[in-house]
Amino acid sequence: MDEGATVRLRLDLAYDGTDFSGWAAQPGRRTVEGVLGAALTTLLRTAEPVRITVAGRTDAGVHARGQVAHLDVDPAALAALPGRSTRTPEDVLVSRLGGILPDDVVVREVSRAPTGFDARFAALHRRYLYRIADPYAAHDPLRRRDTTSWRRVLDAEAMDTSSRMLLGLKDFAAFCKRREGATTIRALLDFSWGRLPDGVLAATVRADAFCHSMVRSLVGSVVAVGEGRRGIEWPAQLQQRTERASEIFVMPARGLSLEEVVYPDDPRLADRAGETRARRDVPGSTATR
Amino acid sequence: MDEGATVRLRLDLAYDGTDFSGWAAQPGRRTVEGVLGAALTTLLRTAEPVRITVAGRTDAGVHARGQVAHLDVDPAALAALPGRSTRTPEDVLVSRLGGILPDDVVVREVSRAPTGFDARFAALHRRYLYRIADPYAAHDPLRRRDTTSWRRVLDAEAMDTSSRMLLGLKDFAAFCKRREGATTIRALLDFSWGRLPDGVLAATVRADAFCHSMVRSLVGSVVAVGEGRRGIEWPAQLQQRTERASEIFVMPARGLSLEEVVYPDDPRLADRAGETRARRDVPGSTATR
Repeated sequence: MDEGATVRLRLDLAYDGTDFSGWAAQPGRRTVEGVLGAALTTLLRTAEPVRITVAGRTDAGVHARGQVAHLDVDPAALAALPGRSTRTPEDVLVSRLGGILPDDVVVREVSRAPTGFDARFAALHRRYLYRIADPYAAHDPLRRRDTTSWRRVLDAEAMDTSSRMLLGLKDFAAFCKRREGATTIRALLDFSWGRLPDGVLAATVRADAFCHSMVRSLVGSVVAVGEGRRGIEWPAQLQQRTERASEIFVMPARGLSLEEVVYPDDPRLADRAGETRARRDVPGSTATR
Repeated sequence: MDEGATVRLRLDLAYDGTDFSGWAAQPGRRTVEGVLGAALTTLLRTAEPVRITVAGRTDAGVHARGQVAHLDVDPAALAALPGRSTRTPEDVLVSRLGGILPDDVVVREVSRAPTGFDARFAALHRRYLYRIADPYAAHDPLRRRDTTSWRRVLDAEAMDTSSRMLLGLKDFAAFCKRREGATTIRALLDFSWGRLPDGVLAATVRADAFCHSMVRSLVGSVVAVGEGRRGIEWPAQLQQRTERASEIFVMPARGLSLEEVVYPDDPRLADRAGETRARRDVPGSTATR
């Protein structure tokens, strides 16, 4: 396929990560990339399996309500999709995907990506949600797939205060699985806690990007504060370190979901992708998780 | 067991109805009553299987976040529960139930029932929620177990107007599965529609009690209005009938959950139970579904 002749499609999707071994395709494992790639390859009748680029490479068991991906397709294959229908190829693709994808993945929208769009490198920030039901919360078995149960009562106010101390452009090495050559400097834009009407604790975590296991480590450090086992300043103290802090409990994947990926306005897209690549696109980088 | 010597316990519970054949025990079927009854019989070491009385006998696939039940237990069996622990027998029962119940049923609270309490007959009203994701809504695979998918866009405003015309103390025969000798007169206290932040349509349906399949029939009649296939007054016109209206589509169980059961203040409990029994406790009555 001639690279110059492709059309870039943006996919907005959601999935229940419970029964997936994460986003990234792995031989012999059920992954979101694997399932979605197979469906797209079938529908677009490509000679080679399609290649999908994703904003957040979620780990096993992590969910997404606002995942974004892109892929480059042959314009002729796309144009052929509607057949005699008057619907757009993108809308037809959404319907056909709905017909063949399992019910734990939903592609909500397919659209032509604006010039310079790159699902991974053009993203300005990613927002995650972490849900915990402690004994104070009303346990809802209908939300057990995206909520972590916690045996001890947590102090939401202390957790919120402690979390806000971590905000800013800082080195998050203490909260990251180290990878050779990859920076652990991130801009943490939001990290706050509150109780939902049913008492469930919800954290909003937003950053330009996350390194591997960073959200679950951040939440784990603050849960120790919420239990009263650690002081409010403990997570901020850990942040001084230049190596992973092994005392941090990495929270279960179940409670975590990628809620939103935000991109700049169209004219700024290519600039943003260029900046991000220059900063982070080194071998083995997990910058965009 | 001497009837006079028993203690009545109130149970507040929630369940994901997806994998249950409804509330009521049936031989060879997995039911909430069956699973819960077996757990209680084991924990309380009763000679006979415990008998549970429930506020809302939900159908197969229907969920509950606010179900209420009661059972009468031997005070000695209850007192023996904590062993050397200083916790109350009721709290110990909640913990032990958490240890042996499957993860789709949660008993949130066990308490001594006030004098005159009857989970079924003392209830003042029951509130249900029905969730529909039409093409306008953001489909969330994490909520697929308690949300009905609908292919056509629904007009929430028309549905809301249409629903409110049904309110009041009226004969709901058109919306009920007829049972010999059972009245179909109900006080419908609330029936309203709105879109949640993610676009999902949510109906609140509240009545003193519901006959069999009444909520799902009410919702089905109004969905026909929302699709534009029927006029806004159609459900109210059906309500004039004295027999079940076979044109009504009974909505899937998946979208329905029992959210709350409201009881009068303690001093009024026995009066309420007496009144309700006099009005509705006839053979084959399904008045309290």
